[in-house]
Amino acid sequence: MTPTITAFERSPDRGKGQARDMRVRWALEEVGQPYEVRLVSFREMKKPAHRALQPFGQIPTYEEGDLALFESGAIVFHIAERHAGLLPDDANARARAIAWMFAALNTVEPPIVELEQAPYAERDKPWYEERLPILKDRIRGRLDELSRRLGDADWLDGAFSAGDLMMVMVLRRLYGSRILEEYPNLSAYVARGEARPAFKRAFDAQLAVFTGASTGR
Amino acid sequence: MTPTITAFERSPDRGKGQARDMRVRWALEEVGQPYEVRLVSFREMKKPAHRALQPFGQIPTYEEGDLALFESGAIVFHIAERHAGLLPDDANARARAIAWMFAALNTVEPPIVELEQAPYAERDKPWYEERLPILKDRIRGRLDELSRRLGDADWLDGAFSAGDLMMVMVLRRLYGSRILEEYPNLSAYVARGEARPAFKRAFDAQLAVFTGASTGR
Repeated sequence: MTPTITAFERSPDRGKGQARDMRVRWALEEVGQPYEVRLVSFREMKKPAHRALQPFGQIPTYEEGDLALFESGAIVFHIAERHAGLLPDDANARARAIAWMFAALNTVEPPIVELEQAPYAERDKPWYEERLPILKDRIRGRLDELSRRLGDADWLDGAFSAGDLMMVMVLRRLYGSRILEEYPNLSAYVARGEARPAFKRAFDAQLAVFTGASTGR
Repeated sequence: MTPTITAFERSPDRGKGQARDMRVRWALEEVGQPYEVRLVSFREMKKPAHRALQPFGQIPTYEEGDLALFESGAIVFHIAERHAGLLPDDANARARAIAWMFAALNTVEPPIVELEQAPYAERDKPWYEERLPILKDRIRGRLDELSRRLGDADWLDGAFSAGDLMMVMVLRRLYGSRILEEYPNLSAYVARGEARPAFKRAFDAQLAVFTGASTGR
């Protein structure tokens, strides 16, 4: 059964692949699972029909027969669990890959989202400029540790996994901030993720929504 | 094999059960799995031996034979996957319970952590007081939606699950802010979680570390 995901009708990032549907598209491409896309407007996202699928009025969602899921982490995990290619077979390695998914979403992403949201939420406040270095240093605190752990390895724990997929997506949110560039091994790690054919197919598909080309595949 | 978790030697919350080892203790109690606790000081947490277990220098960690895990979400999920009691048998209900775990950690917790950290990070800043209402309104934005979804149900998706465990723990971080009290159904939901015998056993065990009573069980 072909799953259907939702994505922004007009992504605020103008197709740079920062919206969270990109994570799900990439996972689906990694495992070779075709999918349909339903685009939703900001107005539709806040209406009861969409909130029934996504209680917080966000994208992406995932529908597959009777199953409706939300949260990009949960959707990527569901895809990883049902198909080969995103989680190792070895039980311990699998558990560690899942730990990296949670680390990406609960430890590394929150300070990055704070920096990203500040211009929207507090640009007109007198403290906006002065807070930016504080926000950036919090991110550096996490990246120092992540960079040290990654070292010169290709991926966080042996083979590429859903943990890397999520971490690469979270680190990509730093584009434009010039912080990622301070960490050559993390920059190379993100580039390694982006070089994967599945990433490229997913990226092109989400960009096509913005440029007006086909939205499904 | 009895797993070993780590917890703060001196929890900053003085035993109120806000440290993340509480999530793991509660999960272990729900499934009836005995465990050992190794207490770590703030100094030890930042040293290489602990960082080998937890790259970000935090607690909790989880060790079980050859497996070493970090991230409370990943540890609770690992426990839930290996034992009955925290995830439904039905595949779709199981996927939805996992979605609520991710929602708790990636959608609801981040703005709560921002409010919690502000006094530590920015209390001496001129904008500290003025930003507090902004931080609180961001939390209310999430809680409005969570409250609407929960309605008058006991749990988020039918039976109690690891998703509820994580959401209750995240909402408990609001104690002292008076925000949770604005949502009677969410307050009752948290109280329902705290009334579970497994919660109480876990709470008593973490409190005993602070009061100086036995640390294991």
